[in-house]
Amino acid sequence: MVTTSKASEPVPHAKVDKRVERSRHTVLVTAFKLLSESGVAGFTVDEVARRSGVAKTTIYRHWPTREALVMDACSQMIAKQETPDTGSLEGDVSAILLEIAHLLRTANWSFVLPSIVDTAERNPEFAEIHSRIQRGHAAPLREVLERAVDRGELSANGNVSTLVAALLGPLFYRRWFSREPVDDQFVKAIINLVLSTN
Amino acid sequence: MVTTSKASEPVPHAKVDKRVERSRHTVLVTAFKLLSESGVAGFTVDEVARRSGVAKTTIYRHWPTREALVMDACSQMIAKQETPDTGSLEGDVSAILLEIAHLLRTANWSFVLPSIVDTAERNPEFAEIHSRIQRGHAAPLREVLERAVDRGELSANGNVSTLVAALLGPLFYRRWFSREPVDDQFVKAIINLVLSTN
Repeated sequence: MVTTSKASEPVPHAKVDKRVERSRHTVLVTAFKLLSESGVAGFTVDEVARRSGVAKTTIYRHWPTREALVMDACSQMIAKQETPDTGSLEGDVSAILLEIAHLLRTANWSFVLPSIVDTAERNPEFAEIHSRIQRGHAAPLREVLERAVDRGELSANGNVSTLVAALLGPLFYRRWFSREPVDDQFVKAIINLVLSTN
Repeated sequence: MVTTSKASEPVPHAKVDKRVERSRHTVLVTAFKLLSESGVAGFTVDEVARRSGVAKTTIYRHWPTREALVMDACSQMIAKQETPDTGSLEGDVSAILLEIAHLLRTANWSFVLPSIVDTAERNPEFAEIHSRIQRGHAAPLREVLERAVDRGELSANGNVSTLVAALLGPLFYRRWFSREPVDDQFVKAIINLVLSTN
């Protein structure tokens, strides 16, 4: 399975698996880096092969199409954020939103996401990936809001989906649309605005 | 200036200007339509020439580069929204946001904007165009909020930039990120959430 192994030498299964795993990982890291630089449109398997040193034939063995590789690399972006439990709704929401604001300022996916959004407009398969990435971002926030409804800290009338959009939307708006700073002061002002009426 | 005119016949200036204007308009409309379909990445002057029937040399006479044509076509997207004056802050904000929600669901620029956002991540010239488009969208909203501060209907503490992001962000979030409906009920819930504390 790995182009560097000699066909004549029997290689133990575990060792092959480890090598395959390593080369898969290298390809995904390289692919994601290339996506950060040139977006979905400028992404080619040739360039991934050149940069990673993994043969194109090997890459195509794991990912039959360019699209499959892009999608797998994108899946790596799904934020694995922990759900905080500070005891109060405002504490939980602050912890989540300040972390997202930090990632919007620094994380690689923050440069790649517009390319996914754009591709999703014209490609239903990408739209599915994209909505998965989005659900990943929003899951901890949704969870702490639902917990607050159960605790009676938040009126059940306050629709959780609406609140998620009201809290995340302004951060995304500043990062990608108005291109204003997403600093901690702004995040706290939004939380104050949205939660004080509930 | 126009490829269909016969060089031997003298043509009145006004007539030439009108023809030039018409061919410019045809090119811009075609360019914008092509952008809607394939985004910035899939945009070529060849295809604009083919579809519009205007010669490539004529197109390049008006727009020296592909980028110049893309940017000019994008500028056409800037919403020429009127600033309403219903007499109340909530009335004004509702009129603006319900119209934007309608455009997000139906207007061509709603499909093209992600491509501009994506290109802006890597291209400062596009970033400038993009921020101009964005200021165009937000101008009437900013105006009615500032008017409400002057009238004393809105606390001057409520930072206008924060309020713009709090009102527009959730709509943009739903349209391009969570891909949930941006219906009138949602728009009203956001207005209620954001304005009731101010």
